[in-house]
Amino acid sequence: MTDPRFYAASGPFTLARLAEIAGATAQDVAASEAVFRDVAALDQAGPEDVSFLEDRRLLPAFRATGAGACVVRPELADQAPSHTALLLSAEPYRSFAKLAAAFYPAPESAPGVHASAVVEPGARLGEGCRIEAFAVVGANAEIGSRCHIGPHAVIGPSAVLGADVRVGAGASLLFCEIGDRVIVHPGVRIGQDGYGYVLGSAGHLKVPQLGRVIIAEDVEIGANTTIDRGALGDTVIGAGTKIDNLVQIGHNVRLGRGCMVVSQVGISGSTVIGDFVMIAGQAGLSGHVRVGDGARIGAQSGIMRDIGPGETVFGYPAMPYKQYMRQVALLARLAKKKGQ
Amino acid sequence: MTDPRFYAASGPFTLARLAEIAGATAQDVAASEAVFRDVAALDQAGPEDVSFLEDRRLLPAFRATGAGACVVRPELADQAPSHTALLLSAEPYRSFAKLAAAFYPAPESAPGVHASAVVEPGARLGEGCRIEAFAVVGANAEIGSRCHIGPHAVIGPSAVLGADVRVGAGASLLFCEIGDRVIVHPGVRIGQDGYGYVLGSAGHLKVPQLGRVIIAEDVEIGANTTIDRGALGDTVIGAGTKIDNLVQIGHNVRLGRGCMVVSQVGISGSTVIGDFVMIAGQAGLSGHVRVGDGARIGAQSGIMRDIGPGETVFGYPAMPYKQYMRQVALLARLAKKKGQ
Amino acid sequence: MTDPRFYAASGPFTLARLAEIAGATAQDVAASEAVFRDVAALDQAGPEDVSFLEDRRLLPAFRATGAGACVVRPELADQAPSHTALLLSAEPYRSFAKLAAAFYPAPESAPGVHASAVVEPGARLGEGCRIEAFAVVGANAEIGSRCHIGPHAVIGPSAVLGADVRVGAGASLLFCEIGDRVIVHPGVRIGQDGYGYVLGSAGHLKVPQLGRVIIAEDVEIGANTTIDRGALGDTVIGAGTKIDNLVQIGHNVRLGRGCMVVSQVGISGSTVIGDFVMIAGQAGLSGHVRVGDGARIGAQSGIMRDIGPGETVFGYPAMPYKQYMRQVALLARLAKKKGQ
Repeated sequence: MTDPRFYAASGPFTLARLAEIAGATAQDVAASEAVFRDVAALDQAGPEDVSFLEDRRLLPAFRATGAGACVVRPELADQAPSHTALLLSAEPYRSFAKLAAAFYPAPESAPGVHASAVVEPGARLGEGCRIEAFAVVGANAEIGSRCHIGPHAVIGPSAVLGADVRVGAGASLLFCEIGDRVIVHPGVRIGQDGYGYVLGSAGHLKVPQLGRVIIAEDVEIGANTTIDRGALGDTVIGAGTKIDNLVQIGHNVRLGRGCMVVSQVGISGSTVIGDFVMIAGQAGLSGHVRVGDGARIGAQSGIMRDIGPGETVFGYPAMPYKQYMRQVALLARLAKKKGQ
Repeated sequence: MTDPRFYAASGPFTLARLAEIAGATAQDVAASEAVFRDVAALDQAGPEDVSFLEDRRLLPAFRATGAGACVVRPELADQAPSHTALLLSAEPYRSFAKLAAAFYPAPESAPGVHASAVVEPGARLGEGCRIEAFAVVGANAEIGSRCHIGPHAVIGPSAVLGADVRVGAGASLLFCEIGDRVIVHPGVRIGQDGYGYVLGSAGHLKVPQLGRVIIAEDVEIGANTTIDRGALGDTVIGAGTKIDNLVQIGHNVRLGRGCMVVSQVGISGSTVIGDFVMIAGQAGLSGHVRVGDGARIGAQSGIMRDIGPGETVFGYPAMPYKQYMRQVALLARLAKKKGQ
Repeated sequence: MTDPRFYAASGPFTLARLAEIAGATAQDVAASEAVFRDVAALDQAGPEDVSFLEDRRLLPAFRATGAGACVVRPELADQAPSHTALLLSAEPYRSFAKLAAAFYPAPESAPGVHASAVVEPGARLGEGCRIEAFAVVGANAEIGSRCHIGPHAVIGPSAVLGADVRVGAGASLLFCEIGDRVIVHPGVRIGQDGYGYVLGSAGHLKVPQLGRVIIAEDVEIGANTTIDRGALGDTVIGAGTKIDNLVQIGHNVRLGRGCMVVSQVGISGSTVIGDFVMIAGQAGLSGHVRVGDGARIGAQSGIMRDIGPGETVFGYPAMPYKQYMRQVALLARLAKKKGQ
């Protein structure tokens, strides 16, 4: 059960309505008027809760669940306890996410500009925006409809935000264009100078950073992540890409559509990444490399060369996953032999 | 000597009083009325300063110190210069920390709410709180006695803080309950959405994040660290755990009591960590792993499987420390042989 | 071409003037009165733009460029298209950086203190300072001439800033002295407590952190980087050192002059680093190690022992670069053999 101080559930919903929302099939038509009030994990759900089983490792919890209803794949339906009504779905987690969003729709932001916020001359706010306390909207910035700008957020001069953008507390968005429905979490830094110098023994000469950051629609950017603007040209994040916390994205990086970039990843300047690439936590990519569509990069890997489309790589320097695991196993075997 | 612009020493203290504070024994009773005014490192201390020797590698500095007094283990007392009065302690660093805290007690915060701070309706402030400029305390938040909320900090709606909590500049604390005496450094991000999506080629579906962050008493959280709230259920940090700067803690992580989590560590979602676990800098833990009580994880290690209680692991993927070092040595030997 | 919403070019400049600014020689004196209006990358430049060729890998782009003028090494002049006037320079990138800075000089900050900023009693502001909205300048802080303090930045009590310092949005600078011309990007955390505890099974005892952070002139510090103050004594950053985003610098670290510290590097407490050291991204340095002048540390490397002057190291644990590459190659060969 969620904490009612923080979350207010809508609903209740009947099983029939839940099936509709989830894109699932209610197994037992007789139960279709039963009413449910919340979502919960298998081991915490009660008779008025809906839960789900995605991962087979949770089968024991599924068999023992107290949930009144549960989303499950058809082939596992016979494992359910008798008191649990079933919603059959080929993708239980996806179905459950839809149910959770129905019970807990993203809260509407009451429109309005807090009395303490600073909106500089020439800035334009779309209809229905909410600008919170101490936010700063720079001169000539353009904010789309229904944006929600958190407390202490800074929208730089001339920055452009699409519709329904949410910006968390204390984030700064400079020299950028941000697409519709982008979510920027607290403390994110967008558009500051990239790390560009001409090195020299008499001192490193700073290279003016004259580009922008372009972020397409439906991107999400995790807390305290940093995205530098381009030196010449732009840093670009493709539509639907999801970036976790504390990620570093250097100047002139181009990330494709639908990528997943997990926490503490670092992507150096001018690296170009295709669509639907997965980069696991703490991986690092050198500058000026290319990563093909659909590639998968393992946690903590070090990428110093181009990666082809669909490749799965791992290690430092990164190599194909199987090769890496073969090397790890070989070394372990050799060391064991010597140790005898 | 500390910089008087930043620190005001209390004291002076007699040697007898220092012994009492430090839980140490003054070796020379005749010196017990000698007076000391400050703490200092061995190589910078003068006749009115107290220093300490913990690490045997600093024996040369101990022999050459100008300190008027020094905390030391009894067995090293005979190495002291003749002008240095000794405070004998089995734990010199612990004793010294107590002395330093006596000379420099945490400064009292003058209570009061800055005229610029925003305290939303329904928020309750305990007695003696200090709320600094431009801080925002959300609706129905509950702040315990003597809390100190720094400038630009954001306490989210309905968040609960215990007594004597200190929150640094620009930190944001959302969807959370924070225990007594917790220290939150500047730029910390607590309680934002975790990184939860149902992946799909037509776009990744965001999974509503409906849990909280629960932080027990005496926890310290370093600057710009991020702690996501739970998806279903909570992210939990146990009492007395100390977290360094730029650490990432994913949704539904459970950290036990008394853990040490060094800078830039990343802990992925739903990982469960026991009590008094040490995680060195830049280590990464996959999601859904379990780490037993008292385990020790080396710097930059990659944890992809469960770690038993008391294990010491190292490397990528992590293995027992000795095994790792054996492999490192073997590989070096082989490469040398081939290189001849 | 830069986006005129964000950047206003000065100029235009004649080729002769550009040669002067760049410290270059115009190859064709006849063209010296030709006029140029902007800088651009080789593949985007037009007849009124100046570009440059530094990296031989871009020779094809150079041959095909539409640039009206280009900075290039003399030995590559014969590769240029006939419509491109040449500026000959031994260091084209350095020359180009000077040109870019001429077209886009750092914008002058209009002096003034925003009505919402809080300047505490005893704080002194030099002439020509710009203090933006909601900034807080603590009691007795000392700000040099022409400093630019961004929105929501916090300058702690008694902190000292030299002349021409720029502080980004939401940064916090506590217990510190900052030299002339230092650039602090948004979200930087300077001067909070270091990570110092006496460990114990009954609870870890916090050690008072009583030092400062001293940052010399011409340092640049990237977004969301954290620099803890010293425990006893100071954390010190040498002149001209450039630090990227999301870097962690522990208490009592000493970094020399002219170092390059790339994104997400972590340097643990009391480590001492010489002058002109290069530390690539995500490398980690243990506490209490020494790194000699001019050393180079590879990306993601783990430094657990002293590194001599001029050494180039790599890997985990770090070793000389050639040795590391030999080991990587050997292991790959062995695994391949076994796999047959």
